[in-house]
Amino acid sequence: MDDLETPPLDDPAGCGGAAAPGPGGLARAVDPEIKERNLKRLRRIEGQVRGLQKMVQDDRYCADILTQISSVHEALRGVGRELMRNHLKHCATAAIQDGAESAEQMYDELIELIFKHSR
Amino acid sequence: MDDLETPPLDDPAGCGGAAAPGPGGLARAVDPEIKERNLKRLRRIEGQVRGLQKMVQDDRYCADILTQISSVHEALRGVGRELMRNHLKHCATAAIQDGAESAEQMYDELIELIFKHSR
Amino acid sequence: MDDLETPPLDDPAGCGGAAAPGPGGLARAVDPEIKERNLKRLRRIEGQVRGLQKMVQDDRYCADILTQISSVHEALRGVGRELMRNHLKHCATAAIQDGAESAEQMYDELIELIFKHSR
Amino acid sequence: MDDLETPPLDDPAGCGGAAAPGPGGLARAVDPEIKERNLKRLRRIEGQVRGLQKMVQDDRYCADILTQISSVHEALRGVGRELMRNHLKHCATAAIQDGAESAEQMYDELIELIFKHSR
Repeated sequence: MDDLETPPLDDPAGCGGAAAPGPGGLARAVDPEIKERNLKRLRRIEGQVRGLQKMVQDDRYCADILTQISSVHEALRGVGRELMRNHLKHCATAAIQDGAESAEQMYDELIELIFKHSR
Repeated sequence: MDDLETPPLDDPAGCGGAAAPGPGGLARAVDPEIKERNLKRLRRIEGQVRGLQKMVQDDRYCADILTQISSVHEALRGVGRELMRNHLKHCATAAIQDGAESAEQMYDELIELIFKHSR
Repeated sequence: MDDLETPPLDDPAGCGGAAAPGPGGLARAVDPEIKERNLKRLRRIEGQVRGLQKMVQDDRYCADILTQISSVHEALRGVGRELMRNHLKHCATAAIQDGAESAEQMYDELIELIFKHSR
Repeated sequence: MDDLETPPLDDPAGCGGAAAPGPGGLARAVDPEIKERNLKRLRRIEGQVRGLQKMVQDDRYCADILTQISSVHEALRGVGRELMRNHLKHCATAAIQDGAESAEQMYDELIELIFKHSR
């Protein structure tokens, strides 16, 4: 994750074959309230991470820091959950309706996300 | 995790019975190089979280954001791993050597950390 | 998981509204090679679990047993991965193509499976 | 996990340096009630795995099978939790009290178990 500005382009076909949506590009659609909730959550997570820095700086009890780290994991899963729902609703649905080939690509991408990246 | 400044005080006995070290207090000891590495990692994680905000703001492809979220999870686990090692080496060891009662408390705390909080 | 013969019927609507396929019922379709692979894996997992019983019976070193338990987790995730792919390909796809309402139900079910049950 | 009869011997030093206890050998001690509980749980897990085979055989709804798989994961974690507590209480404690070198080996082993194998 060295450069967040240029995410992986390993599947340039994308969801539906368009140039813009898909890996390395844009979401097909994002529900505005999901976007707002996620931004709010991520700003809060940023605050939690700064709080962790302060705890480490102050030599706080390791077990307390570990407990706070687990809160950040939980908060990130909350963001992931919203994103995954949006992904299923918009991009996965479009890919599945688009035909067998784009559907197969989407199944593979989802399985990868679920079993490699959702934890 | 509403207030990182005042972590849980649910076990005021602490590791070894001292007033300062233990839950809600301080670590018994932190290796300086571990502390430095963890601060560096956490500053990097803060940057990753800001990167996530930008991705959400820009309506980036959901699967790409989910992949980046998983990088943050992995980076947090890296911090947790260092903290857990430090915790075992200093505080858990002190508690175990301190007698049966403090040892039992430590086993419970460790099991809780491992199975509830280490993910 | 008291009675495997009668799994949860908490969503009687099922995938696509049919009586037979869906929760508490049948899969819409299972690729024969997936089914065969999963049966083979599950028989192997059964053997691993019996091996774990023998290890516990023989007072084997706890860390070795824990390592073997993690192999069983990994093997179970292998089965889950195949099932999830089959589920996406057949039942989720049918539900998504069936209309907005069945699609929404499927998104919820998938999110539940991914974030509650896939670990 | 091809041969449960001969677990990994990658750390022949073991806990405390004795020939018998440690990796590839025996537990230093197992509380009899923990052993009994774990055997009972593992026999139950074996039944659950056979139940899964029947569900796959009968083409049961994938999401129901996935939910049952997650019950098996949870039950395995229950066994792991007991084993980890026993491990901390007996073998880890012995290693930590045995001197700095055996303690360091034990920290490494525990971190490995916690972050690689406890999920």
